[in-house]
Amino acid sequence: MSEAVRLVEVGARDGLQNEARTLAPSVRAELIGRLVEAGLRHIEAGAFVSPRWVPQMAGTDEVLARLPKRPDLTYSVLVPNERGMSAALAAGADEVAVFTAASETFNRRNINCSIAESLARFEPVLAQAREHGVPVRGYVSCVLGCPYDGAVPVAQVVRTASALARLGCHEISLGDTIGAGVPSAVKTLLAACVTDIPVQRLAVHFHDTRGMAVANCLTALEQGVRVFDSSVSGLGGCPYSPGATGNVASEELVYLFEGLGLDTGVDLDRLVAAGGFVDQHLGRVTQSRVARARRADNTTKNPEER
Amino acid sequence: MSEAVRLVEVGARDGLQNEARTLAPSVRAELIGRLVEAGLRHIEAGAFVSPRWVPQMAGTDEVLARLPKRPDLTYSVLVPNERGMSAALAAGADEVAVFTAASETFNRRNINCSIAESLARFEPVLAQAREHGVPVRGYVSCVLGCPYDGAVPVAQVVRTASALARLGCHEISLGDTIGAGVPSAVKTLLAACVTDIPVQRLAVHFHDTRGMAVANCLTALEQGVRVFDSSVSGLGGCPYSPGATGNVASEELVYLFEGLGLDTGVDLDRLVAAGGFVDQHLGRVTQSRVARARRADNTTKNPEER
Repeated sequence: MSEAVRLVEVGARDGLQNEARTLAPSVRAELIGRLVEAGLRHIEAGAFVSPRWVPQMAGTDEVLARLPKRPDLTYSVLVPNERGMSAALAAGADEVAVFTAASETFNRRNINCSIAESLARFEPVLAQAREHGVPVRGYVSCVLGCPYDGAVPVAQVVRTASALARLGCHEISLGDTIGAGVPSAVKTLLAACVTDIPVQRLAVHFHDTRGMAVANCLTALEQGVRVFDSSVSGLGGCPYSPGATGNVASEELVYLFEGLGLDTGVDLDRLVAAGGFVDQHLGRVTQSRVARARRADNTTKNPEER
Repeated sequence: MSEAVRLVEVGARDGLQNEARTLAPSVRAELIGRLVEAGLRHIEAGAFVSPRWVPQMAGTDEVLARLPKRPDLTYSVLVPNERGMSAALAAGADEVAVFTAASETFNRRNINCSIAESLARFEPVLAQAREHGVPVRGYVSCVLGCPYDGAVPVAQVVRTASALARLGCHEISLGDTIGAGVPSAVKTLLAACVTDIPVQRLAVHFHDTRGMAVANCLTALEQGVRVFDSSVSGLGGCPYSPGATGNVASEELVYLFEGLGLDTGVDLDRLVAAGGFVDQHLGRVTQSRVARARRADNTTKNPEER
């Protein structure tokens, strides 16, 4: 048996919340169902945030209610505070995620508080989760750059990630929110993080804004990371660079990892089809090059050659 | 001083010959002039092939005649045979390139001869080049897969590349024509090639058909390769997967290498502008994510923040 990597599919949350068109809960549930059919097991299903601020995530409870439940599936939802946490518990989420940034300016402008304040806000959320036996994932954004400050000191990322780990997050996802990082920076960052946090508890979350995401994932893999956030069809854009590319496409990571002989558990054709489904609903063109190549191959080759 | 890598800009040849619209020689010369302004020093300027087969390359002699000549610039042209070689010499090309494939089926269907026959055809071309003191670059295509045969044995790639080196090609560019390769395959391939050819004589030529090109370049870099073919704005498609992505974008490689602390000599803003120029003439959207992000940044940020 080959070694396995775990993909955390974030298309239905991080992806969709950065797309202009809002999809009905039934469509989002159908997308997630197709992702499950494709073999994904860890899926971010939505967020319990104010629909006034993030209309794309309205009805996350309905999405969860419509999903197939199985012991091998983990549906994660983002919660900003205790109120969101209560909603997530009521809706039966398997995991919740909290988020902060390694940049003070970003936090200030994005969630209107300092890093320390955001961590303090999570304490009761984590307590609630512990009480109900729900695991919590922690996101740290801006780990390789901030849209306002530019460079972000590595020590600040480590401090923030470690604080989330100490608060009880079982997994810390390090996010290059603006897709500015290159492999050498990824290596430096991870080397610093693993001095404080076991690599088994780290995930990486790359955006492909500058086409570096696949190379950055490769470097993270070489540094021992085995959990990768990605988004079917490359759903999502970059709110800080309108028109730029968003999350790394799940299709690319499946192609990469399977090519390297690692087991993702994902059926690439079904994944491409799930991406086609959501793209059609959004009226968008796929950002996945694997998806494009696969469709071209299926169009040009006769059935016997497929 | 930081270590340098050399980009071989192939957009004006490999790129343009795979775009539907044909550009006038004056426009191609203007593009190349802008690439020179951006800092590129090794540029594929065209091909002396039949305009009946490749109308996009018609008037390559006019392109060369219009270009700024400087001792630090190398304009390379593709030649399929002695006739093309004579035309290249008459036009004053600084370098010529010959091409074959590591796949028998591909050669048979693409240039209608076996690998051995294609190499035999190059002998008089190489002799002519030697006589005139013109260096010859050798392309081997299908090094990580063939659109007809699928897998291509590594030994066959090594044999073909070595034969070109023995014939007198100063540099061998290994091309993943269908963009099927992953980093582990690149590593295996290069490890095999360097047993026969010094790594200083190897270049890599990746297509981004499945989004692996930047990661593959990173791996080649780690294996000691310092010469990389790329195409401004990701010009060119994949004739074997219509609608799929073509050559890796030069912008991505400049961003990667400069980010890694390597010197490319290229000004990224000027490169992005050169890509915008040719995209406008082709009526196409850039395939470079760096270019997209850079334009978005320049649109959203006020001048002081740029």
